Amino acid sequence: MLECCTLGTGGALPLPDRALSSLYVRVNGRSLLIDCGEGTQTGIRKLGWGFRCIDGLLITHYHGDHCSGVPGLLLSLDKAERRETFHIWGPVGLKRIIDGLRVIAPALSFPVELHELHGEGEEFSLIGLNITAFPVNHGIPCYGYRLHLPRQGAFQPEKARALGVPMAHWKDLQQGATVNGVQPEDVLGAPRQGVSLLYATDTRPVPEIVNHGQGVDLMFLEGMYGDETKRPQALKNRHMLFAEAAELARQAQPGQLVLTHFSNCIDDPEEYLPNARAIFPETYAAADGQCFVLQYPKE
Amino acid sequence: MLECCTLGTGGALPLPDRALSSLYVRVNGRSLLIDCGEGTQTGIRKLGWGFRCIDGLLITHYHGDHCSGVPGLLLSLDKAERRETFHIWGPVGLKRIIDGLRVIAPALSFPVELHELHGEGEEFSLIGLNITAFPVNHGIPCYGYRLHLPRQGAFQPEKARALGVPMAHWKDLQQGATVNGVQPEDVLGAPRQGVSLLYATDTRPVPEIVNHGQGVDLMFLEGMYGDETKRPQALKNRHMLFAEAAELARQAQPGQLVLTHFSNCIDDPEEYLPNARAIFPETYAAADGQCFVLQYPKE
Repeated sequence: MLECCTLGTGGALPLPDRALSSLYVRVNGRSLLIDCGEGTQTGIRKLGWGFRCIDGLLITHYHGDHCSGVPGLLLSLDKAERRETFHIWGPVGLKRIIDGLRVIAPALSFPVELHELHGEGEEFSLIGLNITAFPVNHGIPCYGYRLHLPRQGAFQPEKARALGVPMAHWKDLQQGATVNGVQPEDVLGAPRQGVSLLYATDTRPVPEIVNHGQGVDLMFLEGMYGDETKRPQALKNRHMLFAEAAELARQAQPGQLVLTHFSNCIDDPEEYLPNARAIFPETYAAADGQCFVLQYPKE
Repeated sequence: MLECCTLGTGGALPLPDRALSSLYVRVNGRSLLIDCGEGTQTGIRKLGWGFRCIDGLLITHYHGDHCSGVPGLLLSLDKAERRETFHIWGPVGLKRIIDGLRVIAPALSFPVELHELHGEGEEFSLIGLNITAFPVNHGIPCYGYRLHLPRQGAFQPEKARALGVPMAHWKDLQQGATVNGVQPEDVLGAPRQGVSLLYATDTRPVPEIVNHGQGVDLMFLEGMYGDETKRPQALKNRHMLFAEAAELARQAQPGQLVLTHFSNCIDDPEEYLPNARAIFPETYAAADGQCFVLQYPKE
């Protein structure tokens, strides 16, 4: 199971009920964030899913609305007495950005490890998720992220018995340990279908979103502009219209398309949803503090 | 008349209903801020007193809870298309701090001018206020601020008439212009009593607060810790107890003492108010978004 929460759904400027971009993702009690706009630490406190368990941050790009909450987040992790390394991924320039923001958070209770993304992106793992970073088109280096939670095969007790593994150690095998020379794969069936989500904001439509988003359970795309009247701004500022996000979803066929990162010229995103649903019916508008649960599919 | 609003009353860590430190001060349609913790731009938007009219920021010190909102504030001023120079005062190290934070707000629609405070502090003017910065005791360079709004003498029409100033130009004289060789002081009575406030948080009690706070209308001091049980933390972290703030007020005799910058271990500051009121009865606890109006005294 993967849980996530849109801590902030505002783009560019925060509103009283719409903080800046951040998604909190939790798997088996460990967490990561995608983006960390101003107000993220307050959103986490409201949500109540904890600070110490946050192992890393994936930054899409370095516009202020996506990373202005970094010093506050680090200071909150420090106050929560985190000790383990905290990992940050982001586009080229990561060290300069984090060093700059850390002028007001220089001494922390934990090490910070930076992972700079280059060119076509890369694959890595955190909190049990297989993560793919892929470049999008926002005029400055900017990445989208695909998060995949794999699911191992079902445990097969008859195999464990045949290999002589005592029942007390079955759990160890299920959790990936080797017991008396028996490997987990010796007693597990074929890997089962996991769950996945894609997160990409601040971009014109690009084929990478369709490629990486094929069949994901949940696709977060930006809802920066609601209708055709804003196309000039969308082209100029390299953002998307609701309808353009929906067209990407139509091609990728996720379980749901959830729009976030709304311009503050959009008072009520629901008003513009028909523009997206005409193209991809399973489209929804996120709100601050909204939680989503991705359950493994039934066998 | 001077108006102000406690945008954020939290210390160290923000709570959902208690943003980090910031005071918005407005005089004759121009504004300044004291401190700018995370959430300040949202507080300003809630308040509705505007961004473009904010001419400067006085930073007490560089702990994150007092300046983590600076990049967001600058970006909001930029979006509001401010063109005039924006002034920032703060302790030694100001350039390094602002340069660091501006990695995510590098290009702005207005110039930023930095004014670094040294040693015993200094006096300067902004938005018609005479401002005194004075050092306090927080373990790192930290300043309190006294803001004084002077009030010129009453206009004396008989003098203007005798000096032959046409009635159409009386207003110019009242606003400080010279008309046909007649100076404002030629037609104004003696200066009248203005209004003033003092703002000092993040400090152990120091005599400078009493000296600069003598008879101010409004004294903002920190309410970091509520009672004697927190004295060890107050001494260690160089903060004050409610009772210590009240004792400073008892000596300085302001019109009101308003406590702000509450530790997040204080759920309801009202609960601890008796500890301060026993020493200085006119003590109040600020809340986020609370506004104060300082009217000139009646003649």
